[in-house]
Amino acid sequence: MKRLLLISNGTNYSRSFLDHALEAIDTFLQGTTGEVIFVPYAKHDWDDYHDKVRGILERIGAVTDSVHRISKEVERKSAIQNARAVFVGGGNTFRLLETLYRLNLIPAIREAVLAGVPYIGVSAGVNLACPTIKTTNDMPIVYPPSFDALNLVPFNINPHYLDPDPNSQHMGETRAKRIEEFHEVNTVPVLGLREGGMLKIESTAVTLAGENGARLFRPNTPPEEYHPGARLDFLV
Amino acid sequence: MKRLLLISNGTNYSRSFLDHALEAIDTFLQGTTGEVIFVPYAKHDWDDYHDKVRGILERIGAVTDSVHRISKEVERKSAIQNARAVFVGGGNTFRLLETLYRLNLIPAIREAVLAGVPYIGVSAGVNLACPTIKTTNDMPIVYPPSFDALNLVPFNINPHYLDPDPNSQHMGETRAKRIEEFHEVNTVPVLGLREGGMLKIESTAVTLAGENGARLFRPNTPPEEYHPGARLDFLV
Repeated sequence: MKRLLLISNGTNYSRSFLDHALEAIDTFLQGTTGEVIFVPYAKHDWDDYHDKVRGILERIGAVTDSVHRISKEVERKSAIQNARAVFVGGGNTFRLLETLYRLNLIPAIREAVLAGVPYIGVSAGVNLACPTIKTTNDMPIVYPPSFDALNLVPFNINPHYLDPDPNSQHMGETRAKRIEEFHEVNTVPVLGLREGGMLKIESTAVTLAGENGARLFRPNTPPEEYHPGARLDFLV
Repeated sequence: MKRLLLISNGTNYSRSFLDHALEAIDTFLQGTTGEVIFVPYAKHDWDDYHDKVRGILERIGAVTDSVHRISKEVERKSAIQNARAVFVGGGNTFRLLETLYRLNLIPAIREAVLAGVPYIGVSAGVNLACPTIKTTNDMPIVYPPSFDALNLVPFNINPHYLDPDPNSQHMGETRAKRIEEFHEVNTVPVLGLREGGMLKIESTAVTLAGENGARLFRPNTPPEEYHPGARLDFLV
């Protein structure tokens, strides 16, 4: 059974890294065994990032290794196939995707998750689970060989979704305007997942969790608002 | 002589489209003759965009045609070579670059500007003048064959540059953090050009114009602040 926990943001305002999501991660991992395999490639310093995440997951009794510490391709693939879960951390989505293509890990992760290995994605890790990274907020600091991503869900997500600020004097595009531009040339729905929000997918059941809800954008249709607890099974 | 006028944003807060930049455009075009060739590809509706810009440039006596209205490649190239100026409008930088590659217009515009055709770029048109589009703020709604751009200046610009908001509770990366990520994997300087700001380049003279100034980022160096009127010749 395909299982995903997609977390909009790593850090909530005034809280420490992953603090707002740790209980949901703990619940999501119940009944699973083995090592969580962390994917640190969205950040520059992989050792540092892994140390940070490992220390936090230890608090819920989860043992974590990082894919960057496994030197052989065949062993990386095996570790992912046998993982308790794959945990893809946030950072820069372009760097994450470019590195995964270079290491031939896109098919490895996709096949493992489709075979039942649970997937936890935070921020850039949420973009990665979608058909493409075309709804990332990140700066395109490196050129990946494609914008196609893991395609684990048939819709796109915009993590860190931000409502327009009526008091802003900044004239750059609002997030809603950017998603409208996406829909000028793409047709898949886009779920704007606000900070604090999470999406839990278990086979064909899609549940909005966490705080602050989400806004669903489709081409030529007014956006729809969904509140925490809403079922969005129609998206899969 | 290479001449560029790079305008951070098309619309200033509480003003109409191009109102804040029209005097600077008028001055920049003094002594030039012929038709301004507009490049509308950053937006979805090219006719509409051209009509809007044409009407505004008429106010300063400039006649404008749009490159999308010229059907043959050889005629597009000739129109650009003989233009009074090339004017690249804002919108989505990925769509702009992808379309220019598809129409084989990257070398045509680059060669014309290096041969002396003045270049006016707004927002996405500013990103386009740089070595790459890797410091755009836009959503990657389409996949261009490369992030390499016109390379008319040897540094990158971040248009619509925005200072961190000390009151924000949003935890997405600040603009400065995004530029820092750029410098984890790239070495060229990045000029954060605030809304209202413009950069005028005449051969080897680089002048910061307009309002609100700019912030210069380099790898492993504290950012430097520049005020309107500053000369930044050292960048070229």
